[in-house]
Amino acid sequence: MKHEVVFQPSGKRAQVEGKKTILEAARELGISLRSDCGGKGTCGKCRVMVTEGELSSPGDKEKRLLGDQFASGCRLACCAAIEGPLSVTVPRESLADEPIILAEGEGVPFELSPLISKYHVYLEAPSLDEPSGDAQRLLKALGVVYGLTTLDVDYPLLQKLPGILRGAEWDVTVTVWDGREIIDVEPGYAQDSYGMAVDIGTTTLVGYVINLCTGELVATESMLNPQVDYGADVMSRIVYSTKDEGSRRRIRETIVSGLNSIVAKACAKAGIAPLGVAEMTIVGNTAMHHLFLGLNAEFLAKVPFVPALQKPCDFKARDLMLEINPCANVHLLPIEAGFVGADNVGVLLATQPQQYPGLTLVIDIGTNGEIVLGSKEVGLTSCSTAAGPAFEGAHVKCGMMAAAGAIDRVRIEPGTHRLSYRTISGARPRGICGSGIIDAVAQMVRCGVLSAEGRINGDAACVRSGEHGLELLLEQADKTATGRDIVITQKDIREVQLAKAAIYTGARILMKRLGAEKVDRVILAGAFGSYVDPESAMVIGLLPQCDLGNVKAVGNAAGYGARMALLSKAMRAEAARIARAVKYVELTTDPDFETMFIASTRFT
Amino acid sequence: MKHEVVFQPSGKRAQVEGKKTILEAARELGISLRSDCGGKGTCGKCRVMVTEGELSSPGDKEKRLLGDQFASGCRLACCAAIEGPLSVTVPRESLADEPIILAEGEGVPFELSPLISKYHVYLEAPSLDEPSGDAQRLLKALGVVYGLTTLDVDYPLLQKLPGILRGAEWDVTVTVWDGREIIDVEPGYAQDSYGMAVDIGTTTLVGYVINLCTGELVATESMLNPQVDYGADVMSRIVYSTKDEGSRRRIRETIVSGLNSIVAKACAKAGIAPLGVAEMTIVGNTAMHHLFLGLNAEFLAKVPFVPALQKPCDFKARDLMLEINPCANVHLLPIEAGFVGADNVGVLLATQPQQYPGLTLVIDIGTNGEIVLGSKEVGLTSCSTAAGPAFEGAHVKCGMMAAAGAIDRVRIEPGTHRLSYRTISGARPRGICGSGIIDAVAQMVRCGVLSAEGRINGDAACVRSGEHGLELLLEQADKTATGRDIVITQKDIREVQLAKAAIYTGARILMKRLGAEKVDRVILAGAFGSYVDPESAMVIGLLPQCDLGNVKAVGNAAGYGARMALLSKAMRAEAARIARAVKYVELTTDPDFETMFIASTRFT
Repeated sequence: MKHEVVFQPSGKRAQVEGKKTILEAARELGISLRSDCGGKGTCGKCRVMVTEGELSSPGDKEKRLLGDQFASGCRLACCAAIEGPLSVTVPRESLADEPIILAEGEGVPFELSPLISKYHVYLEAPSLDEPSGDAQRLLKALGVVYGLTTLDVDYPLLQKLPGILRGAEWDVTVTVWDGREIIDVEPGYAQDSYGMAVDIGTTTLVGYVINLCTGELVATESMLNPQVDYGADVMSRIVYSTKDEGSRRRIRETIVSGLNSIVAKACAKAGIAPLGVAEMTIVGNTAMHHLFLGLNAEFLAKVPFVPALQKPCDFKARDLMLEINPCANVHLLPIEAGFVGADNVGVLLATQPQQYPGLTLVIDIGTNGEIVLGSKEVGLTSCSTAAGPAFEGAHVKCGMMAAAGAIDRVRIEPGTHRLSYRTISGARPRGICGSGIIDAVAQMVRCGVLSAEGRINGDAACVRSGEHGLELLLEQADKTATGRDIVITQKDIREVQLAKAAIYTGARILMKRLGAEKVDRVILAGAFGSYVDPESAMVIGLLPQCDLGNVKAVGNAAGYGARMALLSKAMRAEAARIARAVKYVELTTDPDFETMFIASTRFT
Repeated sequence: MKHEVVFQPSGKRAQVEGKKTILEAARELGISLRSDCGGKGTCGKCRVMVTEGELSSPGDKEKRLLGDQFASGCRLACCAAIEGPLSVTVPRESLADEPIILAEGEGVPFELSPLISKYHVYLEAPSLDEPSGDAQRLLKALGVVYGLTTLDVDYPLLQKLPGILRGAEWDVTVTVWDGREIIDVEPGYAQDSYGMAVDIGTTTLVGYVINLCTGELVATESMLNPQVDYGADVMSRIVYSTKDEGSRRRIRETIVSGLNSIVAKACAKAGIAPLGVAEMTIVGNTAMHHLFLGLNAEFLAKVPFVPALQKPCDFKARDLMLEINPCANVHLLPIEAGFVGADNVGVLLATQPQQYPGLTLVIDIGTNGEIVLGSKEVGLTSCSTAAGPAFEGAHVKCGMMAAAGAIDRVRIEPGTHRLSYRTISGARPRGICGSGIIDAVAQMVRCGVLSAEGRINGDAACVRSGEHGLELLLEQADKTATGRDIVITQKDIREVQLAKAAIYTGARILMKRLGAEKVDRVILAGAFGSYVDPESAMVIGLLPQCDLGNVKAVGNAAGYGARMALLSKAMRAEAARIARAVKYVELTTDPDFETMFIASTRFT
């Protein structure tokens, strides 16, 4: 037997199984009552007012704790069992009001405080005596019950408001953005709200569906950035976009349709409607940011590499053609400078090297490698490197993303040169991902299968002569999921050399600027980061000198930063502070750049 | 020979013909310098600082007036003639700074203070040392020069900002809305800004192009509301719109395309580009307001006639699909209650009966007649009548709008019943407009051609038997522009009876509520108002008792109210106050309504 229980002043309500206590009912609704004694009926902190409704009779202990208050309708929530429909008022002092602290993986802990909140209200039905407009009626009720007095109703919602209010018989839950704008109205009591965080990578798009009430990650979805049709690297896409208005529109529509596809799939996984997505945060490098927004990116590609806009901004989902709630706001994290974009701000928000003493080197390896060096003492300095997509598995013959079936670990036995490998999820091998490539190259260098200059040794047992020269044979066609041999070619090795030299040079130039010979800590961010073997990365000369124990991989920190910004207004402000504070170094104008780059191509 | 003259602190500049005085150059740029003596060099109020530039040598009179100040670079603007490039600083005390007071026709005077303002700035070109984003660069300059520190750049403008700034070589004029949002950036120094005020009538759309710097009306354009395809009256259009989503969209698109056509034509007349329209204000009755915005209007047509929203609101032109600057804000004036809409707020804003002692009756005759009765002492009370479009020339056989060729005055000679008429602009007659119909009916009543019950007298010389019964012959086919007879039929008379009874009854019920037997003043608003003969209106029983001398026609006051709201932020606030203050009377629930209506159909 279930009974309807309504909690005031929140207006939250639910059908609660009989015999449950008020405290249990409150917990189910996400109302945190104080229960210092753990609900044993001894601390007396969970006092609530019950003016009407059926409850179990109070025991002596409860009566004693309540004293005079019992006569005026007070009960202890942990003692009183529900026996019929009930209306409960929770006084301010009985609310636990403890912040929810979130910290997943290597992320910096932060308090859950999303911009989206929900309010349940009953409205008085209009009459000839009180015929004021629907929007006014709703705003008035929210003012009276919740003290929200400066709200607006967003336009697309306004269009259908009269039908919603009447369909719900004037009993609705309102979704408010940032305490200032109503973006959704649902019938009855609706509890959860959802948002999405999106990382627009040059090569990969990742979308996360997040429960905004709990901070919980509900679903993740990723796909290849469909803009690759216009070039694998950012420069060729920018060039394409600046051909004419049509090109800019096309390349924008391509990424938008990619995002809409991610939204649809992720929401399906999460079991929610795309129109139920109430807010979105987005990170991406400056080029992805500009191309997605349809900003003129022409001058981003020319000295002095000036973006159209850097500061964080909120746009309407409908203006961006995103198929979520058209009233939803879409927040783009700020850009630092030139090519050091909102994705890097996301990484820094998630890792916050400026909060720790001792030099931290943050390397975000994607198609563009963004590198930041800094500490609590010296602040943050950043640069951008054109690493290319080798570590994302692109431009590599058998390369693939870090997904099931990707070879992510390789071992070559010294002397015999016998090769073994591991795949993600233990699946039949489909290709090799970034961490696998780094591992393979490190092993080749160690066992003399690869020279310091990057030439494959044709005498090694695991090497064969392929169509285009020497290649490392990882697996024969008959044992792969694709039915084709999995190899690393001499050309792949050249790609790896360029990519690792770009990153290493960037790191060294930042260190030179700060007068540092070694760093105290290395954080590897990026989709492939979770899988990379720090020792191998050190062996191939991707990383500067650092104690191996202090090299940590943190996965998609940019995406995690976007999720933090989705869940916390304070983190959004912190992102803006970080973006303003980071100093930017233009690598290509450094006098040592070329010499260092050429030297860095060696496998040492 | 022209010279560049720059005025500080405004940053305004122009190429000025040599030998002109600084005062003349300032006037051309809209900078009002004090010139109490009329520019004769005698009052010494137009003192300016000239730190560099070539000017005519000062005469003795100027030197004497300036005294010591001459040595420190001061000149009198009315005396100093420009002989080369010049930079002039205008001290605060030399600025006339007098408000521009606008009052056209019968409108209440108000101060020009539009929400749109323009700012001319030079930006520093970006460099590798200062590569901050384009939007930041612009915002920073506006902060430094004009103290504007909380601006945003609207999204569609942001998309093209990089191209505009570089095309203009970093010398631009920025259009700011309400001190908070940049909605346009133009190359170089741009002075004028334009807005549009629009009146969406049930039958007629009227658009006005206004120069926002001077308040001047630059062009007017009107057309039939294309929604008439879905019904001549508001009720049938609402019913159509609530059939399904598609119907609501279609009827919305119809009015939007009508407005876009008005915009295009009015801008062509004004010689400006539609994309140059920086703001728009709109008035219209509640149904027109809702159908234009695509709001669900279903419940507007059902007791208790509740609108979706009443308060004034600003939407983006792009959300409304209006083909003006997509960043432009479109302000809809507030609705009073139910069917007493933003058009009536416009009328009250223009006429402000609540500011005057003694009862004023304001009748806005359109397809729906809105009536307001009030005074400084008793405030304002309104009602809405279903007058129908007879006075707009619709539902009348030879009816037409008050335009060239419309018969607007009719005289019938007593006894002989010889008929004469006047047309608007003296053109060959095309039909008869509202004021002509009222005049004709009044004359028919006076000369016994029409009975008090509204039956045409078949014996009169000017009456003949037509296809559908008796009719008054105004002009023979061979003398009309249409090649058809112009007549008033018995059916037309019935339409007039219903329309005038609706309005008269509304007025009488308001008077009854206030216990008034006569009113001190009648204001006739509406497109046909400018042409109507007050005496004739009184004769046919359209108006309640009032001294004839106190009956005034003010033309399209609703449209004038929209223009006031476009030109003054204070007037916009006043409109909101008026809308909240007006008391609303629902006529149909008044016990005397039916009896009074039937009695009012008589021509007394």
